Amino acid sequence: MRNIRLVLQYDGSRYSGWQSQKHEENTIQGRVTAVLERLLGESIELAGSGRTDAGVHALGQVANFRTESDLGCAELVKELNRYLPEDIAVLSAQEAPLRFHSRLNAARKTYRYRIWNSPVHNVFERKYVYALDQDLDEEAMKRAADRLLGTHDFRAFSSYRRTKKSTVRTLERIGIERRGEELRLSFTGDGFLYHMVRILTGTLIEVGLHRREPEEMEGILASLDREQAGFTAPAQGLCLVSVEYE
Amino acid sequence: MRNIRLVLQYDGSRYSGWQSQKHEENTIQGRVTAVLERLLGESIELAGSGRTDAGVHALGQVANFRTESDLGCAELVKELNRYLPEDIAVLSAQEAPLRFHSRLNAARKTYRYRIWNSPVHNVFERKYVYALDQDLDEEAMKRAADRLLGTHDFRAFSSYRRTKKSTVRTLERIGIERRGEELRLSFTGDGFLYHMVRILTGTLIEVGLHRREPEEMEGILASLDREQAGFTAPAQGLCLVSVEYE
Repeated sequence: MRNIRLVLQYDGSRYSGWQSQKHEENTIQGRVTAVLERLLGESIELAGSGRTDAGVHALGQVANFRTESDLGCAELVKELNRYLPEDIAVLSAQEAPLRFHSRLNAARKTYRYRIWNSPVHNVFERKYVYALDQDLDEEAMKRAADRLLGTHDFRAFSSYRRTKKSTVRTLERIGIERRGEELRLSFTGDGFLYHMVRILTGTLIEVGLHRREPEEMEGILASLDREQAGFTAPAQGLCLVSVEYE
Repeated sequence: MRNIRLVLQYDGSRYSGWQSQKHEENTIQGRVTAVLERLLGESIELAGSGRTDAGVHALGQVANFRTESDLGCAELVKELNRYLPEDIAVLSAQEAPLRFHSRLNAARKTYRYRIWNSPVHNVFERKYVYALDQDLDEEAMKRAADRLLGTHDFRAFSSYRRTKKSTVRTLERIGIERRGEELRLSFTGDGFLYHMVRILTGTLIEVGLHRREPEEMEGILASLDREQAGFTAPAQGLCLVSVEYE
């Protein structure tokens, strides 16, 4: 028995996410699993580092699966790319220890949220950005971001789903960087709750629009109440950049 | 009467080109004209610097039109971008002398052809590149390109359409540059015949694959025969980068 670790890239535009609740839907996990099963001739259980929502993209999603096949990793990458649709790519495959699990062992993740801050359409990257024409006060956004860093209960920044699991996470870094007409937010932490990056982004955008003050962040965190945080920024601007392991 | 010069960007994927022969089709020119007519309340004739084929993109297409409206150029850019589809953008509008014509006065054009030279899909830019997995001998391609520069009758490098017009053009520069897994060809000249950049690219690719020798270029030019040149590279890798005027 081998355990193979894959790094995947995808354009999430036409998928209902990495994995969906309903089995009949068109998911990235489903597409990759189908090709793996055809190539390897066995039933495959593909575990991802985490779900990405419908419409969310990935530059470096990590997944793993066990197999009894002895197909080499280089050959596997080649064959997967041959049969996968053009909007999914396998960047690498490598042998992992049998105990390796892409979700349970993930130590740190980085997401990026791209805001296209211009009245002129971004013709070539329109599906990977959120177009927002209004002026954004980046300095205010940075001050608000600083107040969100550290270990907190981020329940207010997640879409409610009944859970007994901890909603405490550590947000290590929020980067806010302007590149011409694009404002690029990046989030690094030990894990993210359901919709957390999109709600953090929506809240920071509201600060940038002067609809909220940076000083409100502590109160939102303390409230543990989703209604106190900002809107959920659209999926299409979000991308899972990388997953790190110890 | 004013003459307005526009610089346009578009993703050509879902259009039947800048302008099509058949009036009922979905063209860039048709889309922009429709929005202009609605904004300005007059009948508009929009002249482009040249036709781009179905599926070909533009970073800097130039067009012009005459109008009796006194709408300011900044306002015009804003309103056009508001009503145009997301895959067409107007980068600028400026007053031009009444005699200015975007096609007749064009002195130099630059096109770019992007080859994605990898077995791993280019997930995010797949609609703007031609995916070709095989090894390409760039040095051979550069030697062939050098033999195509200068003033020649490029009839062999154009799709035949009965014409009494001259098929002599001056090719000033062909750049062949590798950026990681992408091979980027750029072509600058005083004008290009129908399909000329795509046939030049197809021929250079055949040299890169060692199916032709660089030394064959002079013979192909001299033949004036389309059958002697290489294949027509797919539209999706091609982009009109810029149009220059005296």
